[in-house]
Amino acid sequence: MAQKTTYPHKVDPQVVDFTLRATVPALTNAILNVAGIDAQTKGFGVDALRADNVSWVLSRMALEFDSRPEEFSEYTVTTWISDYNRLVSTRNFTLNDAEGHEFGRAVTQWCLFDLTERRALDLTARGDLYASAVVDAPSPAERPRRLRPVAPVTVSEHRVVYSDIDFNRHVNTLRYLDMMFDTLPIESFVEDRPLRIDVHFLSECRYGQTLRIGSAPTPAGLAFEISAADTATPAVRAAFEWK
Amino acid sequence: MAQKTTYPHKVDPQVVDFTLRATVPALTNAILNVAGIDAQTKGFGVDALRADNVSWVLSRMALEFDSRPEEFSEYTVTTWISDYNRLVSTRNFTLNDAEGHEFGRAVTQWCLFDLTERRALDLTARGDLYASAVVDAPSPAERPRRLRPVAPVTVSEHRVVYSDIDFNRHVNTLRYLDMMFDTLPIESFVEDRPLRIDVHFLSECRYGQTLRIGSAPTPAGLAFEISAADTATPAVRAAFEWK
Repeated sequence: MAQKTTYPHKVDPQVVDFTLRATVPALTNAILNVAGIDAQTKGFGVDALRADNVSWVLSRMALEFDSRPEEFSEYTVTTWISDYNRLVSTRNFTLNDAEGHEFGRAVTQWCLFDLTERRALDLTARGDLYASAVVDAPSPAERPRRLRPVAPVTVSEHRVVYSDIDFNRHVNTLRYLDMMFDTLPIESFVEDRPLRIDVHFLSECRYGQTLRIGSAPTPAGLAFEISAADTATPAVRAAFEWK
Repeated sequence: MAQKTTYPHKVDPQVVDFTLRATVPALTNAILNVAGIDAQTKGFGVDALRADNVSWVLSRMALEFDSRPEEFSEYTVTTWISDYNRLVSTRNFTLNDAEGHEFGRAVTQWCLFDLTERRALDLTARGDLYASAVVDAPSPAERPRRLRPVAPVTVSEHRVVYSDIDFNRHVNTLRYLDMMFDTLPIESFVEDRPLRIDVHFLSECRYGQTLRIGSAPTPAGLAFEISAADTATPAVRAAFEWK
């Protein structure tokens, strides 16, 4: 049976905000980088898939940060795949500070997508390489929650530019998080409150599109919905819940 | 006498564009990160200075990229300080691919800035720690060129948001580069042409300001000037020169 794998990290000066703590998008970037490196190390990363024009696509994620680590502090990201079915693989994460105290965790759900045929592939047909990577340990947090359509109270716009897009000319996952955080009042970052974020990625946004970032208050925080201005289909739905 | 120091790097999937090559802002980020790590390792990094509310501020830089490395490829960033005077320290870089071929180089000029008193400090008064770090090797490229005021032909706007700012609530250096690259037609990234960029950082832009990114063609490429919409003082001037 496979084991969890742990990767060392450090809070570099370029990932802190004015509170001198790592930003949530930067911590999420560390988590997603670890997903990529861990898959690559185990033989099913985007490097091995690229030749077949196949890629991992992030479908849903749940992030919990009890606190944000301070500049220059060291932390670890531990990751493991807990299970998978035909459509979705669940990759988990815990974040621990230098004293071993867990300050964050994430549950991410991925599809394997054939970019040529534009369809999800059957994960159970991938053979032993993937099956042997599963670790017998449950997810460290509640899995990504169901998210309802959002009736926005506030709407801002963002035109998709070169610095927003990935290798596929689609908007980068992290930039969606940035767009949501950028709508928050700057004072909201002063206090380091525990935050849970649930995100669903529903459709892809492309270079040149104008996006509408809608948000509405919820009893526990904020709900977001991002759509291309010229379509009715939402691209991203999310819920922020402060504790 | 001190020696040049070399840091290993790899082109991760999240730093490539649709050409599957590292973006220029990503390569510049690698260069600036190496500047920070090298200064920190040698005892005069932002970690050591933070207690006195002093920081390195990038004043000018010249970047030359003959080509952009491909996804997953390994490269090195070599850095050294060649000289300094009262006001400016010159830090140099060369970038080499896995076969040792030099594909990029940079010359950066830094001031040591007292954030409390809002003034540049005398570098020659910092004693032996800094003097002993100087390497007896010239800059690998022409130093940052003189840049004239720009009469913009095209102007776009950008409002400074949370994801643009650094620990000091000022716009991050890399985001200025993004703003300029984001004005280029997407087709201009297809061909991997050698590019030289000269940048002067003249004044700081803050959270909430609306910036005007002006550009004008030059015989060899493009000239840029970025200013806050409510001031006459330019924040950044730059020249892009394609070979």
